[in-house]
Amino acid sequence: MSLPTDPAANLAELIRCPSVTPAEGNALSVLQGMLKALDGTVERPVFSEDGTPDIENLYARLSGNGPHLMFAGHTDVVPPGDASAWTHPPFAAAIANGEMYGRGAVDMKGGIACFVAALARYVEAHGKPKGSVSFLITGDEEGPAINGTVKLLEWAAARGETWDAAIVGEPTNPEKLGDMIKIGRRGSLTGRLTVHGRQGHVAYPHLADNPVRGLLPMLETLLEPAFDAGTEMFQPTNLEITTIDVGNPATNVIPSEATATFNVRFNDGWTAEALQAEIHNRLDVAAEASRLRPGRDTPVAFDIDWLGRPSPVFLTRDDRLVETLGASVEAVVGQRPQLSTSGGTSDARFIKDYCPVVEFGLVGQTMHMVDERVALADLETLTLIYLRFLEDWFD
Amino acid sequence: MSLPTDPAANLAELIRCPSVTPAEGNALSVLQGMLKALDGTVERPVFSEDGTPDIENLYARLSGNGPHLMFAGHTDVVPPGDASAWTHPPFAAAIANGEMYGRGAVDMKGGIACFVAALARYVEAHGKPKGSVSFLITGDEEGPAINGTVKLLEWAAARGETWDAAIVGEPTNPEKLGDMIKIGRRGSLTGRLTVHGRQGHVAYPHLADNPVRGLLPMLETLLEPAFDAGTEMFQPTNLEITTIDVGNPATNVIPSEATATFNVRFNDGWTAEALQAEIHNRLDVAAEASRLRPGRDTPVAFDIDWLGRPSPVFLTRDDRLVETLGASVEAVVGQRPQLSTSGGTSDARFIKDYCPVVEFGLVGQTMHMVDERVALADLETLTLIYLRFLEDWFD
Repeated sequence: MSLPTDPAANLAELIRCPSVTPAEGNALSVLQGMLKALDGTVERPVFSEDGTPDIENLYARLSGNGPHLMFAGHTDVVPPGDASAWTHPPFAAAIANGEMYGRGAVDMKGGIACFVAALARYVEAHGKPKGSVSFLITGDEEGPAINGTVKLLEWAAARGETWDAAIVGEPTNPEKLGDMIKIGRRGSLTGRLTVHGRQGHVAYPHLADNPVRGLLPMLETLLEPAFDAGTEMFQPTNLEITTIDVGNPATNVIPSEATATFNVRFNDGWTAEALQAEIHNRLDVAAEASRLRPGRDTPVAFDIDWLGRPSPVFLTRDDRLVETLGASVEAVVGQRPQLSTSGGTSDARFIKDYCPVVEFGLVGQTMHMVDERVALADLETLTLIYLRFLEDWFD
Repeated sequence: MSLPTDPAANLAELIRCPSVTPAEGNALSVLQGMLKALDGTVERPVFSEDGTPDIENLYARLSGNGPHLMFAGHTDVVPPGDASAWTHPPFAAAIANGEMYGRGAVDMKGGIACFVAALARYVEAHGKPKGSVSFLITGDEEGPAINGTVKLLEWAAARGETWDAAIVGEPTNPEKLGDMIKIGRRGSLTGRLTVHGRQGHVAYPHLADNPVRGLLPMLETLLEPAFDAGTEMFQPTNLEITTIDVGNPATNVIPSEATATFNVRFNDGWTAEALQAEIHNRLDVAAEASRLRPGRDTPVAFDIDWLGRPSPVFLTRDDRLVETLGASVEAVVGQRPQLSTSGGTSDARFIKDYCPVVEFGLVGQTMHMVDERVALADLETLTLIYLRFLEDWFD
């Protein structure tokens, strides 16, 4: 049996599987075939939960003696949008001008295709790795993410699996391959602020209490001053007001309530709890200051609801993992990658509870867009980087 | 034929007509009967416009030689709401504890009942007035006000009618009869502010432009500083933000646009045009200041739309009209009424284009509420005030 050493061939096979979340689309089966060729044991747990689609997942392992490396990712993709807007069909893996087109090309069937190719080349050159390599692959990363990585980690851990390090193959490079390794992420916290007033006629404002007057300074106090100036490894904490909704259609009526929602991405200077306390404090101060407004003597009344569970901040402190990957990148592309904690959340936030985790993959520029595509040269380069990493990390 | 000299009897007849806008409910016909008994000529023009209900109106005139006084008002009423919540049925004119219950008791069938009674007593005592008295009564004051007072004024003016003064019988007294004559109104201006930004992911705010960040200081600049401190006869100009709507359901997405609507009630220190220019200027300054925000170098982009036509401010400067009415109130209740320009708009804003106009009627506390009602004593007092005014103004 020939080994899957060609990342472009691997990727073409995967792109041709229309695995838009929650459909498996044969993508995991194709991957299973490649891993079987590498003599891996492959399992395909399906997870269910009321109100969400059943999701197929894959866990594979090539066992050796020594440390255990996890490669994590997903074969599901976001919808192609208007397929007719694509230069080449989104599930055809057409190649033009040295680029392969297709949904998932960079996010992240491409990363999987390269890691499989790297492992195949390693096996071809060295035989089984000195340690173990496992693939933890979900079909639910782009969806509600309920029946995916979280349950797959619990499932594997319950069977006694432990890992020494993990690489997530998401596209981490902003502009060119080798730019950036992600070694952590800011936390995320979402809150909804509701200010209560008293409805009335605009011609008689003294008989009403316009909640918008109370809301504005409270929102200002969430935006200013900045929560911090950033930390050694993290960007400054940032708060965005994502919506304000009053929904009053009557232009001669003062509304009774005004609501705003905000999301904070916070760095390792904070815990979610400390940040919630800081936000509460700022709002209390603003509410108290509202007493000074003409015509008021009581503070503005408000509620705050925290939506969902906050994502904690994390930073990967495994020097050997980070250093080995950074050196592998430098050896192949001649440039040391930036170590970053920027950007949105990823499944790494779940994996970090089991082992040190880093993220490194392709260039993200076309992800989620029409004409998602990857340079064939990048596929080869990423394969060489992953191969170099396998050689050095298991050394 | 007995003359309609009893305001309570007149009012009971009118309340029993269920004239919820746009229904005539026989109310204008009942009024027509009373005015015929006073030997008036009565006409009943109906006005129509595509997309609105046809509306019945009434114009009556008792002609004499001398000045021409208009009494203006409406027989339509707002809906009773939950009729079962009323202590006495809303269209029964029940009397309990010296009060008559019913929708329209104070707003403003009561004012009409009293003016008719006052005129009947005048005719009984003095014969035809020395001048002319006309009734300009619409059935569309509480509705869209399209086929009502505006068209009735145009219709009468086109027939050569001119007036020397007008009284609108709306309930003007906040607490007790004789408190307040209204001699003008603030203007009203409504605008909608839209701030344009650029959508993006909350984790990458530097790639987006959150319009809420631009909107907040623009709204603050509309609220502060105050537009003025009031003028001799007018309250300070006041701006209320009536709604803010972004409508972004995704807590991880920075929205592309944010919209707020505001209404300004402005005094005679302003024209609508001057106020629009001031608001534009404040917004321009705030937009320009936004350049100083970290990460910006262009001003925030915004649009402002003016909704509907502004209502102009007006002040009645007819000293004889105001003085005669004030003295009539004082003669009957022993207290000089406050001359006010406070409160919401009324049909006086249309009448003022034809002749000097004042507003004086019952106590407004129960208007538009369940258990709208009027003290029988107030009906008699208001009748005496109107009678005294007729005697003195025509003298």
